[in-house]
Amino acid sequence: MIALFTDFGLHGPYTGQMKAALHHMAPGVPVIDLFADAPAGDPKASAYLLGAYAAWFRTGTVFLCVVDPGVGGERPPLIVEADGRWYVGPGNGLFELVQRRANMMRRWDITWQPGSLSASFHGRDLFAPVAAMLARGDPPAGKSRSDDSDRRPDWPDDLAEIVYIDHYGNAMTGLRAAALPAARRFEAAGRVLDRARTFGDLPVGTAFWYENSNGLVEIAVNQGRADRALGLSVGTPVAIVA
Amino acid sequence: MIALFTDFGLHGPYTGQMKAALHHMAPGVPVIDLFADAPAGDPKASAYLLGAYAAWFRTGTVFLCVVDPGVGGERPPLIVEADGRWYVGPGNGLFELVQRRANMMRRWDITWQPGSLSASFHGRDLFAPVAAMLARGDPPAGKSRSDDSDRRPDWPDDLAEIVYIDHYGNAMTGLRAAALPAARRFEAAGRVLDRARTFGDLPVGTAFWYENSNGLVEIAVNQGRADRALGLSVGTPVAIVA
Amino acid sequence: MIALFTDFGLHGPYTGQMKAALHHMAPGVPVIDLFADAPAGDPKASAYLLGAYAAWFRTGTVFLCVVDPGVGGERPPLIVEADGRWYVGPGNGLFELVQRRANMMRRWDITWQPGSLSASFHGRDLFAPVAAMLARGDPPAGKSRSDDSDRRPDWPDDLAEIVYIDHYGNAMTGLRAAALPAARRFEAAGRVLDRARTFGDLPVGTAFWYENSNGLVEIAVNQGRADRALGLSVGTPVAIVA
Repeated sequence: MIALFTDFGLHGPYTGQMKAALHHMAPGVPVIDLFADAPAGDPKASAYLLGAYAAWFRTGTVFLCVVDPGVGGERPPLIVEADGRWYVGPGNGLFELVQRRANMMRRWDITWQPGSLSASFHGRDLFAPVAAMLARGDPPAGKSRSDDSDRRPDWPDDLAEIVYIDHYGNAMTGLRAAALPAARRFEAAGRVLDRARTFGDLPVGTAFWYENSNGLVEIAVNQGRADRALGLSVGTPVAIVA
Repeated sequence: MIALFTDFGLHGPYTGQMKAALHHMAPGVPVIDLFADAPAGDPKASAYLLGAYAAWFRTGTVFLCVVDPGVGGERPPLIVEADGRWYVGPGNGLFELVQRRANMMRRWDITWQPGSLSASFHGRDLFAPVAAMLARGDPPAGKSRSDDSDRRPDWPDDLAEIVYIDHYGNAMTGLRAAALPAARRFEAAGRVLDRARTFGDLPVGTAFWYENSNGLVEIAVNQGRADRALGLSVGTPVAIVA
Repeated sequence: MIALFTDFGLHGPYTGQMKAALHHMAPGVPVIDLFADAPAGDPKASAYLLGAYAAWFRTGTVFLCVVDPGVGGERPPLIVEADGRWYVGPGNGLFELVQRRANMMRRWDITWQPGSLSASFHGRDLFAPVAAMLARGDPPAGKSRSDDSDRRPDWPDDLAEIVYIDHYGNAMTGLRAAALPAARRFEAAGRVLDRARTFGDLPVGTAFWYENSNGLVEIAVNQGRADRALGLSVGTPVAIVA
């Protein structure tokens, strides 16, 4: 299975052209849209989102990841294997958390070259073919990497910021709930938030936090939009209440 | 074929994770996005939409339906077979119209349990696996149901309200056109609407109603947006003019 | 492969029902969403977009194209073969540029009739089955066409207007970059735009034009939205600076 993690949006031709490239080179392999609206142009927030969601997928899954504000510039194109899952995309920090959290990790600089490479769409011309080759069982199309310029050792293990607002207005943070005491409270946008198990546990209109279905601390309002009610957006800091 | 009917939106990870679960358990079965924007948190309006659209699909289709504001609460998880089509989802009224309009109908309480069930994403953890098992030909993963707590006998056979606004601003009602005389007129938002066969039959800018491609009464404006021109949204009542 | 080019939007039931029809009649053939947000109701702008993007796909691809404000009216339903790619949809000018730019071109009037044809959804009832038949290898379901009422000889070879705004706010024109000198400058919304190779070549906030990954002149702002910064929308004229 190939899972797509991009900031392309679902509209427009970008995801479709990547899928066409994948189908041509890895016919019959299922392709899943995981995120098409990862934080736009923000590899850091995206890295925490990818770390939380990739862990749900089976080993052998190939993640084709394009959050790449520097396309056409100097960041290295990478293949990463982390705990049996594969990641293909730009070496701009996007794979920092999947690398840091892995028990077993290997990296390659992509050396494969397409016949024709556009300046602005490496997702279609470079990363999709390389992901397709991995998905059909080819060895990584690169050479083993030792340079750490793609790593971000200064980033925290968990990010106390909003990293995603979903369709319902729920706000995901970059914090893993399992690392926190159950009674922990948070402050976001001046509001102190208690923990709940799920939406129905609290009165309508109450803001709270809960462990979402992929393990992240998520802020929600029962039958309301947390983003609007609390003024949250990607990048808003969240404070742990002592 | 598995058809998805949800209020998840197409963005974000929810539809993708459900599709990954379906592919793992029913590899090779086509999965179709029917609605990802069913009326959010509104099983009643959704029930009339589902009733109209499911009828277009072939028998044997499995509808995986998640409009589930009570996820994690008490509503029963259900399998319904109605006239040879299968429905999997929450027993909150969402299947009322497909049940009521069926010549042959059976129900099961889902008894299958996943290894791990999140509090907030039964679509991925419970309903998708059960739908996949049906799609690959397994018997229903439940026990025959006699309790009627999932039924809504007080809901009308046709709903005189807007149940969906489409991409063009056309407003679908919960009324089946076949049940109405051809010359019937409606009033919506203070405007009386005559019937037309299709868009080109009337001057540009004229509001009218017509039988849409799935048999529902739909309000439209030739080369305009009916939602903005008439101030319509999901829940707006429509009156039949005597 | 079947590629979808429509103005349906991704939400709502339209794309899903077309895909269900395609799967039933051409099982196993991959279906790709190329554009679901082609210029709404605008076959002319859409024709330049289709011309640029179709050329990227392999020969044998079937394009199912529905930008059809006259559905239910008099425009002829067509099959076009142009340089080994197939196009199915309304004869309203949508295929003008793929026809004009082709070295080898043939046309058919669709004569195949569905068992049931809705007045408003020929994409599902007529065009999808005809596209599926081509994709599975059947001969064109029509008779050879000589009438030129679907052609638009008065349209230019390249269109000096914005034809698409993407998810990032970049504005595509209907002009092919290959037809222009490298040093050419444009004026749009009162601003003179120089050419750049890609986004990183200019300071943050600078507006420029570049050849996009499908050969069109595209207007962008480094780390900004060109549509908002310059006030561009579909139909905005672009002037070539002498």
